[in-house]
Amino acid sequence: MARIVMKFGGTSMAGIERIRNVAARVKREVERGNEVAVVVSAMAGETDRLVNFCREASPLYDPREYDVVVASGEQVTSGLLAMTLQQMGVRARSWLGWQMPIHTSSAHASARIETIETDKLLAAMKDGQVAVIPGFQGVAEDGSVSTLGRGGSDTSAVAVAAAVKADRCDIYTDVDGVYTTDPRIVPRARKLARVTYEEMLELASVGAKVLQTRSVGLALKEKVRVQVLSSFGDAPDGGDLPGTMIVGEEEVETMGMESQLITGIAHDKNEAKVTLTAVPDRPGAVASIFTPLADASINVDMIIQNVAHSTGSTDVTFTVPGSELARALDVLEKGKDAIGYAELVHDTSVAKISVVGVGMRSHAGVAAQMFKALADRGINVQAITTSEIKVSVLIHEDYTELAVRVLHTAYGLDAEDAA
Amino acid sequence: MARIVMKFGGTSMAGIERIRNVAARVKREVERGNEVAVVVSAMAGETDRLVNFCREASPLYDPREYDVVVASGEQVTSGLLAMTLQQMGVRARSWLGWQMPIHTSSAHASARIETIETDKLLAAMKDGQVAVIPGFQGVAEDGSVSTLGRGGSDTSAVAVAAAVKADRCDIYTDVDGVYTTDPRIVPRARKLARVTYEEMLELASVGAKVLQTRSVGLALKEKVRVQVLSSFGDAPDGGDLPGTMIVGEEEVETMGMESQLITGIAHDKNEAKVTLTAVPDRPGAVASIFTPLADASINVDMIIQNVAHSTGSTDVTFTVPGSELARALDVLEKGKDAIGYAELVHDTSVAKISVVGVGMRSHAGVAAQMFKALADRGINVQAITTSEIKVSVLIHEDYTELAVRVLHTAYGLDAEDAA
Repeated sequence: MARIVMKFGGTSMAGIERIRNVAARVKREVERGNEVAVVVSAMAGETDRLVNFCREASPLYDPREYDVVVASGEQVTSGLLAMTLQQMGVRARSWLGWQMPIHTSSAHASARIETIETDKLLAAMKDGQVAVIPGFQGVAEDGSVSTLGRGGSDTSAVAVAAAVKADRCDIYTDVDGVYTTDPRIVPRARKLARVTYEEMLELASVGAKVLQTRSVGLALKEKVRVQVLSSFGDAPDGGDLPGTMIVGEEEVETMGMESQLITGIAHDKNEAKVTLTAVPDRPGAVASIFTPLADASINVDMIIQNVAHSTGSTDVTFTVPGSELARALDVLEKGKDAIGYAELVHDTSVAKISVVGVGMRSHAGVAAQMFKALADRGINVQAITTSEIKVSVLIHEDYTELAVRVLHTAYGLDAEDAA
Repeated sequence: MARIVMKFGGTSMAGIERIRNVAARVKREVERGNEVAVVVSAMAGETDRLVNFCREASPLYDPREYDVVVASGEQVTSGLLAMTLQQMGVRARSWLGWQMPIHTSSAHASARIETIETDKLLAAMKDGQVAVIPGFQGVAEDGSVSTLGRGGSDTSAVAVAAAVKADRCDIYTDVDGVYTTDPRIVPRARKLARVTYEEMLELASVGAKVLQTRSVGLALKEKVRVQVLSSFGDAPDGGDLPGTMIVGEEEVETMGMESQLITGIAHDKNEAKVTLTAVPDRPGAVASIFTPLADASINVDMIIQNVAHSTGSTDVTFTVPGSELARALDVLEKGKDAIGYAELVHDTSVAKISVVGVGMRSHAGVAAQMFKALADRGINVQAITTSEIKVSVLIHEDYTELAVRVLHTAYGLDAEDAA
């Protein structure tokens, strides 16, 4: 007997037929004698629909009310899955964020989970009742509804798994594992049997779209065993098809020959580039830009500052998620006098391409190989950032697919048999 | 300065453009110096969509989880209205059922409001903040989400108006008042400037579709001044178009000449007829039918029992809302041995037609006139019930519109100028 947390994404929850499929997978785990909690996303498309309502209502919407609106999507699917399980003879009930409760910070629309009260939840699970938990939502200290930001359901699942000390956290999605890159762009992409937490962090944060970054960071911190697998299709024995296990680095290193320099290529078209021109080149200038952005809970990703012009000023460029651009521009316009920049320029026609791999640490030349491969195809690099296991570049979004294909081949990731 | 509760139905909340129209009406009341609470329905069609998900998931759905699912519709519109008001410069916040809280009974899917905590709500309203309250929902004693049953938002509005001691409860809807009958069926239907609580009770309960029955009963009990008016169109002075005031009987009686024998004709196609054949004619037999239905919170409307056959048994017929038929049949099938009937027959092809008027009490012959008018057109009457101010008949639903038109003319309700 094990205690497991299962998480199903929006595509797996899109409509009652698919919810029945989810319920059948849950039932299978219950019949194996396991204690099960299920974390669910909203139906595919539903969160977008709700977010669009908010944007239409008010471009600079109140994040507190935004959370009231968007949290409803997961509320619906958790109720529907609970009743579907009951219909199949499996005892189940929904636990909304404020009912459990899942306490979060009060940073509405991008709250962080602080603590999860598990006494009542665990008592119900031990009594054989499946706990169905809407992902993405919690309750802030003042009793208001909070949400974790887009893709937050993965984080909910890992946090619940950590809180109930689950033996495993199975993340079911519409892909059957983690690939070397997006198979829709590169048909020869290969499924990885194992990937390290650190690699997943980079792959997820740069748009591999399999797991939310924060969930992987949390899994690493809390040592939660996470498995990514498909909610569609079954193995011949009726079990799940094999997915991708996310493991500690030591486990990969023992694999010897199988280890590779580069694990995968990721891309992200949802970034927006913002440039402030002629920022005074004095101590505190950069802080005056990023402190108010941080206060507004806007996620800044790449930051590029060149050496100062001879005029004593410099240009500062950075990227934010496209969805946060309007709020970022608003914050910066209000802070114009305090920062003292000349112009505020933005560009949403950009894409970030990253090559990721734990093997990179011991190999020079990865970045050079990347720039050469892109230059050979005439792809202009607008900005560069690097980390220990990643090199990322910002390019014009029109070149996204070309860049991914070129790099997938350049690093020898193409599968031998075409998909 | 007055304290008012405004309520907007699903058609008024269907989409952001309409929500802006609602916000403009709310803003107008705020600018008049009034303290305002707004109760909102889900967007038109949304509750149906959610109910259909539940039915599809499980024909005999768990009402507890059903409430989790369907309460989300009003949660969405309350958040959207709050942020739209803010965008227009009006301070506002949403108050979900569990946040206020609105305490209800634990009869899920048809809960009753027990108490409403108003301390925090009134403090915010007095401070000039508009309170946006999702209709239809509350929280049960065990902390689970509860809903009041379809159309419950009217009841929420009247209950909030009573709890905050509002000077007025304005119910905005997609019709501009209460008519003598459905104007879509009878173009010569007339708008009533005043109608009594008692008449509205009968008109609403038999399908006039303007106000939910329970809300009118509650308004009568709590002496809440209710006004029904349109959320579309304005008077030439920019104010609301005149609607229908719901008043005490004494106010109508002082109107002398204007009082009429019959106030209106209502119809309802959402009833289903259930017949149990050969029920033993012994004490307790009827109780054995209706006690389990009541325990399952199924609303039984008309009940007809004829005198016993010579065999010592009798047929019992009653009607329930079409939406509760499946549950009713389930309860009755499970109780077959205890009740001891022969057959369980049901028919959803029925309509209930009612003539309503406080003047009826002092006039004999209303019923006779009704049966004759229907018989003249060959319309067969399947069942009859009467109250002090109403006569209702059950007919085949195909004859609904014909019956309404015939009766509207027979009782002299047609307007002199065709609409």
